[in-house]
Amino acid sequence: MNASTNSELPIGIFDSGVGGLTVLKAIRDELPHENLVYLGDTARLPYGTKSPTSISRYATQATAKLKQQGIKLLVVACNTASAVALDALRAQMNRLPVIGVVEPGATAAVSARPGGSHLVLATEATVRLGAYRKAIESLDAAAIVREQACELMVALAEEGWTDGDIAASIIRRYLHEASENDFDTDSIILGCTHFPLLKESIRAIVSDRVLLVDSASTTATVVSQTLRSNGTLRASEADGSLRFLATDGATRFARVGGLFLGQQLSNSDVELIDL
Amino acid sequence: MNASTNSELPIGIFDSGVGGLTVLKAIRDELPHENLVYLGDTARLPYGTKSPTSISRYATQATAKLKQQGIKLLVVACNTASAVALDALRAQMNRLPVIGVVEPGATAAVSARPGGSHLVLATEATVRLGAYRKAIESLDAAAIVREQACELMVALAEEGWTDGDIAASIIRRYLHEASENDFDTDSIILGCTHFPLLKESIRAIVSDRVLLVDSASTTATVVSQTLRSNGTLRASEADGSLRFLATDGATRFARVGGLFLGQQLSNSDVELIDL
Repeated sequence: MNASTNSELPIGIFDSGVGGLTVLKAIRDELPHENLVYLGDTARLPYGTKSPTSISRYATQATAKLKQQGIKLLVVACNTASAVALDALRAQMNRLPVIGVVEPGATAAVSARPGGSHLVLATEATVRLGAYRKAIESLDAAAIVREQACELMVALAEEGWTDGDIAASIIRRYLHEASENDFDTDSIILGCTHFPLLKESIRAIVSDRVLLVDSASTTATVVSQTLRSNGTLRASEADGSLRFLATDGATRFARVGGLFLGQQLSNSDVELIDL
Repeated sequence: MNASTNSELPIGIFDSGVGGLTVLKAIRDELPHENLVYLGDTARLPYGTKSPTSISRYATQATAKLKQQGIKLLVVACNTASAVALDALRAQMNRLPVIGVVEPGATAAVSARPGGSHLVLATEATVRLGAYRKAIESLDAAAIVREQACELMVALAEEGWTDGDIAASIIRRYLHEASENDFDTDSIILGCTHFPLLKESIRAIVSDRVLLVDSASTTATVVSQTLRSNGTLRASEADGSLRFLATDGATRFARVGGLFLGQQLSNSDVELIDL
């Protein structure tokens, strides 16, 4: 396959559900000419409370599906799958680039706040594996890392209750559990693709000097850099195509996905597939 | 198989996760001598946001597993699976009794409040299918039924945040969405096995004259009546055995399951299986 054929292929973006659409949106904003294909494994979401063995099996199946469609780069837009299965997926994709969301988030936090303290808000599986802790500590030995599982924040985002008193109380409680009311952190890493929807509510609670790291936009930057350095940016100036694949529930994908994407989706935009 | 062999077989109890342990507990309280085997399909939970096709497939696989173990009666301790797949599971179990949680809950509400108004709190899938509405209206043509999907209440129960201000605010908001602040209902049906954990918080908000229908205990009564009328109650006076099967995550099953069961579980109590 030569570089010119390659560059027309879509970027594959994989998530356990609709949360990764925040990453798709960031890539779309940064690289509007790229063709994108998104796969949400909605039949088996959420990954965040499942075992590493199951998460790896699911991620491998989704990756095989995208590889078979023909993609030039894979984005693992799910923190949990990035934390558990990134090495396995890199082996599976052979020489094609595979970009997870953990490394870009960790890099952004460490670059902006060297030697700083970082609070990672994530799913139970991501926290249990210490994925951000390892990534941050390997980049900055002086960094201090705290991690907090926040399952109710996932539900808040899916329900669309992203502002108001209930969101604020839940965020406050998790921050309290993480730090015993001491919000003195240099950065808060939104370590789940659902959490960018809660960014304003988090911002209203924490001090202005705390950096909020949204891995969606930092991941989009890494995707852009990778395509540039490989010479596989799409040449056309036309808007790229968008495809949405899901393993279950087109109606719910369209409704909840619209919240994450920030634009309306209809059932007919979503292709149901089997893994 | 004669009646005496049959009565030694366990009762099979199936749920998408750990919520059905509230039903197991109620059966245990009512029938302490019965052997019980519980299957939680934790690899694919939650069912409440999935499509009917996926829910049916999952429920059929779980039922096949329990049937293969040898059971004398199947309890579908998941409102969503009861709403979607009960007829299919009855066909699958052949002549063995299959008891869902929707019918007992509907019967209890209608018997206690004939001609009354009922508010059903449930998952998205159960509400979308109108399972309780159909069951109640077929029993009592004069009944008025409102249904409200409450996904965040599922997350609250799993997180163990079952009392306090956050639980109260979330419950209040769903009641408000259901009835525009008019809590004038004769019964509230806890139409998801997670919700009995929130019973006290709901009770603190609604008037004392509102009946709270917990399908766990009403289902246990139906199980007891069925075994009695079939002559298949276990003859022994010894405590029955308990087995827990799960499709994923023994650690989480033990931790969260303990909340639902009201007793400690350890990893080694849980057998991991594949479906």
